[in-house]
Amino acid sequence: MSVHQPLAIGIDIGGTGTKFGIVDKDGNVLFSGEMSTKKHREIDGYIDELHGHLGELIEKAGGIGRIRGIGVGAPNGNFYTGNIEYAPNLPWSGIIPIAKMMSDKFKLPVTLTNDANAAAIGEMMYGAAKGMRDFIMITLGTGVGSGIVANGQLIYGHDGFAGELGHTIVIPDGRIHQGTKKHGSLESYASATGVRLTALEMLENSTEDSLLRTADKETLDSKVVYDAAIKGDKLALDIFEFTGKILGLALANAVMFSSPEAIILFGGLTKSGDLILNPTRRHMEENLIQVFQNKVKILISHLKESDAAILGSSALVWDKQ
Amino acid sequence: MSVHQPLAIGIDIGGTGTKFGIVDKDGNVLFSGEMSTKKHREIDGYIDELHGHLGELIEKAGGIGRIRGIGVGAPNGNFYTGNIEYAPNLPWSGIIPIAKMMSDKFKLPVTLTNDANAAAIGEMMYGAAKGMRDFIMITLGTGVGSGIVANGQLIYGHDGFAGELGHTIVIPDGRIHQGTKKHGSLESYASATGVRLTALEMLENSTEDSLLRTADKETLDSKVVYDAAIKGDKLALDIFEFTGKILGLALANAVMFSSPEAIILFGGLTKSGDLILNPTRRHMEENLIQVFQNKVKILISHLKESDAAILGSSALVWDKQ
Repeated sequence: MSVHQPLAIGIDIGGTGTKFGIVDKDGNVLFSGEMSTKKHREIDGYIDELHGHLGELIEKAGGIGRIRGIGVGAPNGNFYTGNIEYAPNLPWSGIIPIAKMMSDKFKLPVTLTNDANAAAIGEMMYGAAKGMRDFIMITLGTGVGSGIVANGQLIYGHDGFAGELGHTIVIPDGRIHQGTKKHGSLESYASATGVRLTALEMLENSTEDSLLRTADKETLDSKVVYDAAIKGDKLALDIFEFTGKILGLALANAVMFSSPEAIILFGGLTKSGDLILNPTRRHMEENLIQVFQNKVKILISHLKESDAAILGSSALVWDKQ
Repeated sequence: MSVHQPLAIGIDIGGTGTKFGIVDKDGNVLFSGEMSTKKHREIDGYIDELHGHLGELIEKAGGIGRIRGIGVGAPNGNFYTGNIEYAPNLPWSGIIPIAKMMSDKFKLPVTLTNDANAAAIGEMMYGAAKGMRDFIMITLGTGVGSGIVANGQLIYGHDGFAGELGHTIVIPDGRIHQGTKKHGSLESYASATGVRLTALEMLENSTEDSLLRTADKETLDSKVVYDAAIKGDKLALDIFEFTGKILGLALANAVMFSSPEAIILFGGLTKSGDLILNPTRRHMEENLIQVFQNKVKILISHLKESDAAILGSSALVWDKQ
């Protein structure tokens, strides 16, 4: 790292936690940290805490003079307005002018986008989508986000909100989403919360013996389901099959819409590897019409998870220059 | 029309019929004609007949020297390869190198794309989408096609097949599509065939009195349903409500994906006006998350129907230059 190399700040605001870091242009995360999003009911307190943490990192990195800007990825983050608008998974309701607020606080230019769009730019600059002109990034975390790249460009849409694949309806009249109150969206099944709900429902609705019956209901998540599934637990396998069926259907619909070269998955659920990928691929192929079959790669992001969100957000700073 | 103005041929290949014409750069269809697609089981006979009809029009228009090229819109038409590939609604199966075949026959450059992509280019050059950078064109005809424009560019996708919104699955395990054998696609409900099937199913499954009970089952289509609905026929209105529910859901999903400024509808079903538009709009809005609500215009194409398909296809010739 050259002493005079310009740096960027990347901030990834998730429903549960916020990751932040200082990144060089080659994609090295030099300093990073994490804090809770959830505990901050007030946006001002949130920005104060973030400013405090980042202030320390900026000093370590050689001072604010080296920082070119801040890139922020957040659910419902709008590239055009710099606002987070009506994000169902964040503690702040309504319209939050977060780019303006951060810019005032940090005295640095701030670029905001949807967290999954940020991840897509990160994959295109540093990850699995290097060199691709048409791909879809899907983040399977607390929520389900997506970033769509076509003709080599991120699709922001008319108003900056494109790429909300997680809120598309996969099962009409299906499970209700507690944030949006809509029924049957992809996010209500394929998010961390969704997989947990599927597990609880399946335990409730079946009498089948399962390792999951003795699991702590409070901490039951895709990791716990994974641990049972690799031991051959039938109910745990059924949970992945069910989740893969819905995710595969949603991927098939996305493929028939924008015909990407690859779909890149990122997030907690992908740690279950083939247990979730196999049913997802199978159901995707089953729902594709012939011209799309056996063409589209489903790839797992190979960026280090702790870095990827920060990298993607920081890439906004260079992407804008 | 200047004597020396260059002209383009536009050909729109539909499942039932083919429209063709000679168009100037301002979008005036100077000469046009129509023939059956359906009756030609062999592609060679089809191209021979088309060549015969167009030969006459070319002479009328001042000879082949004035023609700059041929634009063809066809279901599953691939912009990159010039092939029609596995089109479920056309009489020819497998891969048809139609651009090459036509180019050999006509001795003119041929540009092919999906029929709905051609319509989208036509709307962007001459129609309701003039000046828009983000919109979705949806054709509701024998099949349901779509053309997606984002950042001012048509989305062809990785392999040239983007925009198959008609084949996305709206009702998992729903009605089978006779062409694709997939269940619950938009096309199996919102195409001409789909609306007809809905009408026949509703007549079968209800005992309700209806003007449609005395209609000729052979010719029952959205026009017949429209005629009954404007007289207040409950079952006819239910058919539009049902179709609008499914179309509205599909539109909501498309909006959350690419966030267009408008959706432009074209084709037979749109002639039913508010009877189909009102339930479609209502169900679209119901399925949208808050950030997208009350923003997206649903417009009916105002290009003359007899011209629009030809115009759109011919626009490919200028778009490529």
